Amino acid sequence: MKKIFAEFFGTFWLVFGGCGSAVFASQIAPSANGQVGILLLGVSLAFGLTVLTMAYSVGHISGGHFNPAVSFGLMAGGRFSARDLAPYILAQCFGAIAAAGALYMIINGSGGADFSAPGAFATNFYDAPVYFEKSYSMSAAFLTEFLLTAFFLIIIMGATDKYANGKFAGIAIGLALTLIHLISIPITNTSVNPARSLSQAIFVQGNALSQLWLFWAAPISGAVSGGLIYKFLLQKESVISE
Amino acid sequence: MKKIFAEFFGTFWLVFGGCGSAVFASQIAPSANGQVGILLLGVSLAFGLTVLTMAYSVGHISGGHFNPAVSFGLMAGGRFSARDLAPYILAQCFGAIAAAGALYMIINGSGGADFSAPGAFATNFYDAPVYFEKSYSMSAAFLTEFLLTAFFLIIIMGATDKYANGKFAGIAIGLALTLIHLISIPITNTSVNPARSLSQAIFVQGNALSQLWLFWAAPISGAVSGGLIYKFLLQKESVISE
Amino acid sequence: MKKIFAEFFGTFWLVFGGCGSAVFASQIAPSANGQVGILLLGVSLAFGLTVLTMAYSVGHISGGHFNPAVSFGLMAGGRFSARDLAPYILAQCFGAIAAAGALYMIINGSGGADFSAPGAFATNFYDAPVYFEKSYSMSAAFLTEFLLTAFFLIIIMGATDKYANGKFAGIAIGLALTLIHLISIPITNTSVNPARSLSQAIFVQGNALSQLWLFWAAPISGAVSGGLIYKFLLQKESVISE
Amino acid sequence: MKKIFAEFFGTFWLVFGGCGSAVFASQIAPSANGQVGILLLGVSLAFGLTVLTMAYSVGHISGGHFNPAVSFGLMAGGRFSARDLAPYILAQCFGAIAAAGALYMIINGSGGADFSAPGAFATNFYDAPVYFEKSYSMSAAFLTEFLLTAFFLIIIMGATDKYANGKFAGIAIGLALTLIHLISIPITNTSVNPARSLSQAIFVQGNALSQLWLFWAAPISGAVSGGLIYKFLLQKESVISE
Repeated sequence: MKKIFAEFFGTFWLVFGGCGSAVFASQIAPSANGQVGILLLGVSLAFGLTVLTMAYSVGHISGGHFNPAVSFGLMAGGRFSARDLAPYILAQCFGAIAAAGALYMIINGSGGADFSAPGAFATNFYDAPVYFEKSYSMSAAFLTEFLLTAFFLIIIMGATDKYANGKFAGIAIGLALTLIHLISIPITNTSVNPARSLSQAIFVQGNALSQLWLFWAAPISGAVSGGLIYKFLLQKESVISE
Repeated sequence: MKKIFAEFFGTFWLVFGGCGSAVFASQIAPSANGQVGILLLGVSLAFGLTVLTMAYSVGHISGGHFNPAVSFGLMAGGRFSARDLAPYILAQCFGAIAAAGALYMIINGSGGADFSAPGAFATNFYDAPVYFEKSYSMSAAFLTEFLLTAFFLIIIMGATDKYANGKFAGIAIGLALTLIHLISIPITNTSVNPARSLSQAIFVQGNALSQLWLFWAAPISGAVSGGLIYKFLLQKESVISE
Repeated sequence: MKKIFAEFFGTFWLVFGGCGSAVFASQIAPSANGQVGILLLGVSLAFGLTVLTMAYSVGHISGGHFNPAVSFGLMAGGRFSARDLAPYILAQCFGAIAAAGALYMIINGSGGADFSAPGAFATNFYDAPVYFEKSYSMSAAFLTEFLLTAFFLIIIMGATDKYANGKFAGIAIGLALTLIHLISIPITNTSVNPARSLSQAIFVQGNALSQLWLFWAAPISGAVSGGLIYKFLLQKESVISE
Repeated sequence: MKKIFAEFFGTFWLVFGGCGSAVFASQIAPSANGQVGILLLGVSLAFGLTVLTMAYSVGHISGGHFNPAVSFGLMAGGRFSARDLAPYILAQCFGAIAAAGALYMIINGSGGADFSAPGAFATNFYDAPVYFEKSYSMSAAFLTEFLLTAFFLIIIMGATDKYANGKFAGIAIGLALTLIHLISIPITNTSVNPARSLSQAIFVQGNALSQLWLFWAAPISGAVSGGLIYKFLLQKESVISE
């Protein structure tokens, strides 16, 4: 039961911190002095720090997944029991949605926001010109999410391998999520986490809901591939490490 | 006595570094080349680094609270003795005010600054259009400060839990404060620390003083909630760890 | 064989993450709100984080070079066997080229890009006015790449010395690469890694190919110098540490 | 002798990386897309990373001072022998000047730069409107440099105290230097290091030389104060730790 609470609070923090920083702080240009917001760089840092901080504070309780794709990938890699998969994913989704609800309440405290444009709130997207005049196609978005989640799992499997310096795993994994966002926010707003995508789409509806399938399919298939790659190509022996 | 000095110097550094970077360096646009200041991203990093650096240098002396809300929250979580609460909070407030005084002297060394606008010096605020044309309501500000301080305490309690990698606590807690600022500077200028808010309000007076109650009430109630959440929902046993 | 896979995936990640963040996210100015991209600062962070994350996840498998110059430098410093040099460098080059191919596919998913300008894709360059009206000469570019790779090797040799806190080597080495980019992106787009330069030049052709020699010669000669400086001027004894 | 080399290379890296990032990369606005340089935030990060990276790679050889003020402060705090003071400071000054020479050569490789304006190259200054229309007075500059170096020494003394988690000292001390720059680049271009200030002033001459006294007097007196504060107010016993 403590594991479930840990996943709930951890995923709440991931969405509240990551999506929250994107919504409240990424673009601020109050005057002729130019942009003073945290930019997509700050949003990338925020997503990573949600995982880094929770990994060191509740990671010892639940393992610190905070992401259904990570749970699937660790199961494929032989590090996580199929029996725990459903409760973990439910806790992650509820935590993410609760955080999105809190963000929604705060936004309404400043008069609300326009949720009609692509990428509104912190929704993921493809085939939509959010950051550029050109947009990235569905297949480019799928490839990006697939590859990034696969490498995310290789890093998670490797950093928690019994032969690795496991105490640094929270830093490596958290900053891997920062790196993933540095690459791909302009392409899809970066998911690699189906619970995070779901939480935003529920409030925004419309295209965010109809494109949601990709942000479950690509991260989960990528994560499973990453788990298997590490297990069969990189891991010294097929053991449950830790 | 050394504990009191550690809290004094640590909170001085938090205000001098965090509020100082905001006041001196966040916005700089000397020419047509655009903004070259550290942005709200740099201010967020600065606040976190004050805690990270002091946690590793005087944390072994006092535990490294540097924040009345943290002291309250750790007391609620069973990690800090009520007997030490008053001296810690006094040392934190004196340290914060001394730092604000030093910042004030340096500002006067360049001809002073206008303290009449909301958010001037590094004061906290609500219901004031500082970063956007729209402003966040009192209840949105309270919810934000409450939630962020609650999660700050969950992270502090968790990262210093005897089952956690306690040596990394200074990194996790410091960067949690960076994350908190990445989310909420545009909403309230981010307090989560009553001593920090007090120190700025004393020099600016006016609205900063009349709104100061919220930046004591919300962080302290949030911190107590976070301490209790960790103790009852997440902690394995009710023990004093470390 | 697992070593070869580790170098392949690690160098893939270095190019996909470092060059990818440069290509997709460094400059984004969708509106009158000014620049919101990750800037050259975010690109610098991304390159460093690719190494930091892979060092902690596959470093225990291959040593985590991900860079032919590093392999040469460690050989000169007495830390790496000449017998493994060729397979490591091949794995690094193939990994880098595969990553550049993936980036190329994603770029084509938004209609492709103009590869004719100097510095296009994330190619390295000299004597070309990419970031400034003035350009840096071939000799300035050579000196810069030589010195930076030499210090990179001093840091790698030192951080993995048996007298050092070796567990922190992944942080020191990864962030050294971030630092190297903070200094030199405007000068050469920063190589210090022949495989990274090769991977971009193959897709862009033209000047990027004809200038490629410098981004093999300068990093490798610098790395060898750095390895020797550490071995003879700084290292306590001539031992294989690790 | 290895200690002297370690201080030489470490201080070379501090000036080459910190001042180099400021000179080459802080402001870049190649087009109508706005600023893409690393900003003062990136410069702050670069200075800190020079110390972090060298602390983990040559810190075990010389203790990793790279700064005459640090050597003075550690002597005052009882952690460094007066006998080694002169050779350390000489090595630091030669390393800093050699790095400034290398930067000078690279700058000339793009046609040179105007060294007549205050703050040119990466010189320190006071009473000069470099970043703002207003300038900070000599006394504000002295107070800033004094306080920041005092706290820098408190952090160094504390993080290397035998009761602290000494293995994290390189992170705490390096990031403390980042924090110091986040606060004070707009005020003095940030010295806290007489060797760094000397190296730039020698090449620029003029005001940079006539104001150089302050960037020796303030950091050294601040560092001695910080060393004494830690020793008498914070340290448990007067012992040489490590």
